[in-house]
Amino acid sequence: MVLYVIGLGLGDEKDVTVRGLEAIKSSDKIFLECYTSILSVDKTKLEEFYGKEIIIADRDFVECQAEEIYLPAKEGNVSMLVVGDPVCATTHTDIMIRAFELDIDVEIIHNASVMGAAGSCGLQLYTCGQTISIPFFTEGWRPTSFYSKIEYNRGGGMHTLCLLDIKVKEPDFEAMKRGKIVYLPPRYMSVNTAAEQLIEAEEIEGKGAYNPSETLCVGMARLGQKDQCIIAGTLEELKDQDFGEPLHCLMICGEVHDLELEFLKKYMVEGSKFKANDHVLQGAAAAAVAKKAVEQNTEDN
Amino acid sequence: MVLYVIGLGLGDEKDVTVRGLEAIKSSDKIFLECYTSILSVDKTKLEEFYGKEIIIADRDFVECQAEEIYLPAKEGNVSMLVVGDPVCATTHTDIMIRAFELDIDVEIIHNASVMGAAGSCGLQLYTCGQTISIPFFTEGWRPTSFYSKIEYNRGGGMHTLCLLDIKVKEPDFEAMKRGKIVYLPPRYMSVNTAAEQLIEAEEIEGKGAYNPSETLCVGMARLGQKDQCIIAGTLEELKDQDFGEPLHCLMICGEVHDLELEFLKKYMVEGSKFKANDHVLQGAAAAAVAKKAVEQNTEDN
Repeated sequence: MVLYVIGLGLGDEKDVTVRGLEAIKSSDKIFLECYTSILSVDKTKLEEFYGKEIIIADRDFVECQAEEIYLPAKEGNVSMLVVGDPVCATTHTDIMIRAFELDIDVEIIHNASVMGAAGSCGLQLYTCGQTISIPFFTEGWRPTSFYSKIEYNRGGGMHTLCLLDIKVKEPDFEAMKRGKIVYLPPRYMSVNTAAEQLIEAEEIEGKGAYNPSETLCVGMARLGQKDQCIIAGTLEELKDQDFGEPLHCLMICGEVHDLELEFLKKYMVEGSKFKANDHVLQGAAAAAVAKKAVEQNTEDN
Repeated sequence: MVLYVIGLGLGDEKDVTVRGLEAIKSSDKIFLECYTSILSVDKTKLEEFYGKEIIIADRDFVECQAEEIYLPAKEGNVSMLVVGDPVCATTHTDIMIRAFELDIDVEIIHNASVMGAAGSCGLQLYTCGQTISIPFFTEGWRPTSFYSKIEYNRGGGMHTLCLLDIKVKEPDFEAMKRGKIVYLPPRYMSVNTAAEQLIEAEEIEGKGAYNPSETLCVGMARLGQKDQCIIAGTLEELKDQDFGEPLHCLMICGEVHDLELEFLKKYMVEGSKFKANDHVLQGAAAAAVAKKAVEQNTEDN
């Protein structure tokens, strides 16, 4: 009796691993968590492929009825399916902690995640600093807490992977006022919106963490799928590119090495005005200089 | 005609994806790159599982005869198998660039990598800064260039994933002097050696990037395999733990959040003397304080 937490990867039904597929086929109950990411195929397609029924576990379910997922693992195998890799989001950690407490065997079956696949553009994952999330700005709420993280990453020469907001099953408050439970259609932030919000964040903060018309960035859509789209350029350039369907993500470059640039060339906006290694900017300058000095010191040893 | 670059994941023959397995079965030639990581099964086991012959591509082969891998993809499908995910190491980038230049179709099939699976210990991958590599110290070569990277990561509250040195097919220079081509047996750095070298690096550098008897670290071995081993504690504690067979890796914590600590509890050395969030240390103090101030500012918006 095991609670399998199984990564499905990024594309379609065939991106599950052979081990994952065997675990699913051995399970009495199968849940699909589908509010932190999406596959390019729907539940029906997965059910056909597995020859098994799937229960959708949306946000409400995972947050309020988690025991319906882990308790049945005391009686038989249960699979909880997660798009990408299971250890990349906090939600799943929480369920696993609760299962441990009840001495339920938990087995994680890993898979590709966007944090790994983002390396497809040719930027080295080793050089990525902390990952940031960019939330949808609203009329009265335009939080820029991600800004200082980009500044710190770039001050140390690191790239920044930006995960873009997903709004799934958000309550429609207008309808709720009328006593109805209605959900808004899902929204997935595009690279275009992210670029616009980052440009605005630089205007608000003004510390030169990045330069919207010079810093090299890479917009990516549907990573790991057949029709994935990768376009490199400045934020000013990327905000007008067409990336197509979700999910999108964005990388803001830090120090870019020759091999990285060589690889990125094939994705570059024609005539891009980016300046490679513009990273020593006002805001980040002090940190970058200090870091160089430290490195020089250590390399001399 | 496609050059498939296929991640095999971290465990054994069953960690390939269904898509990956189909690509392998459709290929005329199959190469296995096996000097940047290892699986728990050998070539014969993979050959049985695929029903196909595999050519081992060691370091010499990949660096000096790369065209033997990508040129046949002009005539038929070729699979290049990589342990983990294909986009996590520079070597594969290089082969892909050369294939692009010859207009060869390249398809990456992603999988789990150590950079994702390291999240199994409960530390959030979002909070990881740049990844460092720790090389084997030798009598006359004790490079500590990774030190300033840890310092910078921790100054910003970030965790640091340390990848540990692998020496495969290293020439035996003594034998070579006698005119023979002999290779040394493979060596994989253990968490124990890494901990000792990190303690020495702190003695050499002395800037308090981390504290060997206080900073929380997590040693991990054989991630993604059935018998994976995770132990949390200070470097002083981890250097005496038994992690078993390779591959090992190590995480040095930055700021640790409650949920992360909660998860780590089950892996903690009994009676560990670690101090959570000791991250504001001499060397990193200025950066950390500056960062806090910036964050405070932005959160106030």
